[in-house]
Amino acid sequence: MPLVRIDLDRALFERKEEISDEVQQAFVDALGVVENDRFQIFHPHDSGEIVFDPTYNNVDRRSLILLQITMVHMYSPEAKRRLFEEIVRRLETLGLRHEDILISAVEVGYEDWYAGR
Amino acid sequence: MPLVRIDLDRALFERKEEISDEVQQAFVDALGVVENDRFQIFHPHDSGEIVFDPTYNNVDRRSLILLQITMVHMYSPEAKRRLFEEIVRRLETLGLRHEDILISAVEVGYEDWYAGR
Amino acid sequence: MPLVRIDLDRALFERKEEISDEVQQAFVDALGVVENDRFQIFHPHDSGEIVFDPTYNNVDRRSLILLQITMVHMYSPEAKRRLFEEIVRRLETLGLRHEDILISAVEVGYEDWYAGR
Repeated sequence: MPLVRIDLDRALFERKEEISDEVQQAFVDALGVVENDRFQIFHPHDSGEIVFDPTYNNVDRRSLILLQITMVHMYSPEAKRRLFEEIVRRLETLGLRHEDILISAVEVGYEDWYAGR
Repeated sequence: MPLVRIDLDRALFERKEEISDEVQQAFVDALGVVENDRFQIFHPHDSGEIVFDPTYNNVDRRSLILLQITMVHMYSPEAKRRLFEEIVRRLETLGLRHEDILISAVEVGYEDWYAGR
Repeated sequence: MPLVRIDLDRALFERKEEISDEVQQAFVDALGVVENDRFQIFHPHDSGEIVFDPTYNNVDRRSLILLQITMVHMYSPEAKRRLFEEIVRRLETLGLRHEDILISAVEVGYEDWYAGR
């Protein structure tokens, strides 16, 4: 039951379906998540709402897309790294730059969810 | 000091006052939260921003309302389950379907808050 | 790599640059965060989207700005308290009232981030 909140520029939101599919497929491929276990919330942002410094840590950022994942605490650091790299690799196939991607995961328990029943 | 971020369709946002009241009363009834300890952020969403698969886990989802709760780590799994079920029960009295409700809780410490003083 | 999600009234969003700068400087001064390590997402809200009770805990709230911080678990409760107080002190210099500020921190691991590489 990963939940992904995606903050991105409004212009990029036009490609939401491709982004949604690639992000979901990354969960399937990297973590074995069930294909139709997809819960994503998109926040398209207008100018000035997404703030970043283009020079931090010697990464050449020109834009920023944030994926904030809430997921059950059950994966190793290596598995999470594989997930992040698979998300990035897939978003790059859409033309996004890895420098412009920020991913944040927050882990919770099994008992911290209600999903329709 | 529970904080509830509520993502929902813009059409449903018209009923925000009822939703707000029922969610808050669920915290009062299930966890003994003080009645006026109410902090909620509504995100009304346009078409395409809330993404889910209507078939996951054999739940007949037609729409999705997400309640993401940030709360102090002080409740048992049973207490959280009571909270979730009370939220769902109360939202059902407004005509929402339990299948369409997704709840996610994130627990933090007492020291992770500043609330006006 | 603190990430700060800021929910505020749309009218106050006009002062986003000052708010952004003061919040970032609080991280620098209170925690020694690197100056250009700035990631902030603003959510300007229309009427009725930010819900609070003006009487809770004897704090005279008239408005509400929420800062929800995702940060690595590496700071003591005292350090976090210094951060919160520095954020509040700096926002007060912009004319915001401390009563109207709500801060929530969520801690994660180093391995829970991907930041452009």
